[in-house]
Amino acid sequence: MWDRLLTDCHVATMVASPGNPLGLFPNAAIGIADGKIVRVGKRTELAGFRAKEVTPCGGAWVTPGLVDCHTHLVFGGTRANEHAMRRAGATYEEIAKAGGGIASTVAATKAASADELRDTARRRLHALMQGGVTSIEIKSGYGLDTASEIRLLNAARAIGRDEPVRVVTTLLAAHALPPEAKEGPARDVYVKMIAEEMIPAVAKAGLATSVDAFCESIAFTPAEVERVFTAARANGLPVRLHAEQLSNQKGAELAARYKALSADHLEHLDAAGAKAMAAAGTVAVLLPGAFYALNEKKKPPVDLLRDAGVAVAIASDCNPGTSPVLNPQLIMNMACTLFGLTPEEAIAGMTINAARALGLAHEVGTIEAGKAADLCVWRVSELSELGYWIGMPGPERRIFCGQDS
Amino acid sequence: MWDRLLTDCHVATMVASPGNPLGLFPNAAIGIADGKIVRVGKRTELAGFRAKEVTPCGGAWVTPGLVDCHTHLVFGGTRANEHAMRRAGATYEEIAKAGGGIASTVAATKAASADELRDTARRRLHALMQGGVTSIEIKSGYGLDTASEIRLLNAARAIGRDEPVRVVTTLLAAHALPPEAKEGPARDVYVKMIAEEMIPAVAKAGLATSVDAFCESIAFTPAEVERVFTAARANGLPVRLHAEQLSNQKGAELAARYKALSADHLEHLDAAGAKAMAAAGTVAVLLPGAFYALNEKKKPPVDLLRDAGVAVAIASDCNPGTSPVLNPQLIMNMACTLFGLTPEEAIAGMTINAARALGLAHEVGTIEAGKAADLCVWRVSELSELGYWIGMPGPERRIFCGQDS
Ligand SMILES: [Zn+2]
Ligand SMILES: [Zn+2]
Repeated sequence: MWDRLLTDCHVATMVASPGNPLGLFPNAAIGIADGKIVRVGKRTELAGFRAKEVTPCGGAWVTPGLVDCHTHLVFGGTRANEHAMRRAGATYEEIAKAGGGIASTVAATKAASADELRDTARRRLHALMQGGVTSIEIKSGYGLDTASEIRLLNAARAIGRDEPVRVVTTLLAAHALPPEAKEGPARDVYVKMIAEEMIPAVAKAGLATSVDAFCESIAFTPAEVERVFTAARANGLPVRLHAEQLSNQKGAELAARYKALSADHLEHLDAAGAKAMAAAGTVAVLLPGAFYALNEKKKPPVDLLRDAGVAVAIASDCNPGTSPVLNPQLIMNMACTLFGLTPEEAIAGMTINAARALGLAHEVGTIEAGKAADLCVWRVSELSELGYWIGMPGPERRIFCGQDS
Repeated sequence: MWDRLLTDCHVATMVASPGNPLGLFPNAAIGIADGKIVRVGKRTELAGFRAKEVTPCGGAWVTPGLVDCHTHLVFGGTRANEHAMRRAGATYEEIAKAGGGIASTVAATKAASADELRDTARRRLHALMQGGVTSIEIKSGYGLDTASEIRLLNAARAIGRDEPVRVVTTLLAAHALPPEAKEGPARDVYVKMIAEEMIPAVAKAGLATSVDAFCESIAFTPAEVERVFTAARANGLPVRLHAEQLSNQKGAELAARYKALSADHLEHLDAAGAKAMAAAGTVAVLLPGAFYALNEKKKPPVDLLRDAGVAVAIASDCNPGTSPVLNPQLIMNMACTLFGLTPEEAIAGMTINAARALGLAHEVGTIEAGKAADLCVWRVSELSELGYWIGMPGPERRIFCGQDS
């Protein structure tokens, strides 16, 4: 006796096979027990099985629950004022140099009470969940001192306990230099604090499952990132990297040298970087929301990634400054419209490849026996509509470990 | 005794005054009776009035219900396949010449049953209503013969009767030439049929409140549009025009000569067109969803419109080929991000100016006594967030003629 049987559906298992990259299984049914998928099969084959609850899906398409593998969800305030500044022509660098940018969110985050932080993050999370997100990564990075970074990771973890969504946390202390530590010895002290204080403390408390950094002319140098990565490795935490967003810093190769789970953004990636990522199994996480919001012109080199055989994920990058995106389907559409991904690549990018970027591919990202029963039921005629509509309200049914929510 | 009192809210009445373009009224309350607004005032002033229902808004912002003044909501099929073709580099013109484009939707619309047409349109409508749309314009234009155009207008009207949303219908028989009538005498016969058969029939049956046309090298010439407009005028129907989207055809000046309610798209508008529109009181309807979906590079000349003093509206252009947009807030964000509108202009563009484009400004578009109580209650700290977030799920409360829905 299963707990649940979804029937009368077409399934994209996302288990690729030759000629069937999405693992399409029409006229299927899905058996669920103990929050996990126990069987995917032909509707007729599974008709004989008994389940406590049978859910006919009326011919809808079922995909794995969406995995949003790159967000900065927990923050104080908004940056609606900078949005207006950008309308007047200011660049991201100009805003950052004028004391806006990440620093203003750091201040607003410090000023926010625990309740405010949790409530505003939860409102954004609910929007993403309504859009089909069943697993989400949340980075710190608006604290920039040990206690504040830990506060953000704790807040993210607390949200994960209160909600059915699976939350994965990432330490991103190397997101920006604190205003008082932009240059000289103070800068060095901050990087040292990340490596010798924050990473060990977070690893010991089990508050993050990876360590991220922002490698860019306006953020951390490759040498500084390497100190952060070395500490992460010493503390048993895998790494990720914000790389080649505004310029090529050889961040992708650096990430690959440390066997990073992912390198993210990648607008300025070159062929050497793509090859290194492929060899290391590092996933490319493309973030079209930031490209769109910043009015960028240089797209990430999707062909290089395809040619090198790099797995490509996409994510909302939900953050107050450069990608205040609240709709995951829109990210699939932007990946197609702005970056030229096919709808199939966009769907893989928010399921199996996003799970890979989080080191979660053993648990989520495909529909196969043994994985979590995190599912989206989409009222569409063709699965390619997920890349086609612009701002769909979300799946008609969202299932977290077998339960609707 | 009023029917309802909304209290503890900040209101953007959208009644502009010097220094207060949005008519902001903080700490306000709104009295409603018989589906209409009876009074907007200070919260403390209105505290003494009695109402059958009091709705405290917890400090939220209230705007007029959104007006989506340009959609092609009723159609058969999708064009998800063309979306994939465009990823492979095909242009809008190439797709149209290859027999795709509007013609493929005309065929799918003819093939769709009445139930299919209504159900799919209603699903899209519900998405837009969830996003805050309380009034919507729906064009025909996928029929291209008298009976089929009337069928679409009837379908749109029927949806309006079943739903709380206000539906305004527009005859757009001059959307595309039927495949068999692209050239020569057949082309002339089609234009004649619009002018002498469709417009009189639709006017007589009261099925549309305006007549629209697509003036473009791939659609109708200015001379053909003029025949359509002349017939509209003779039958007492105001006109609108799809103008200067892909090239400058002097469509804006043509529209202005006929005192059109609006000229729409306008990427290739010139100064003479903007001046003519201002003099005629013709509203500019900008459609950033189509600009985005078609990867256009030439933005509409917003500065020309501002300088000339043209009222600017924005709309979803919801249609299967070039703007399958389902989220009105996203249109406000795109208007800011892609076209450089200020958040204030974007909000006016989906309220008062959109109402003007529909000739409905006496009924909706602002919050003032005597207008319909169509309202959106937004859980935001600042109103500019409506232009800032990318793909918000919609207002926390949607009020149609005083009733939540
Ligand atoms: Zn990021
Ligand atoms: Zn249109």
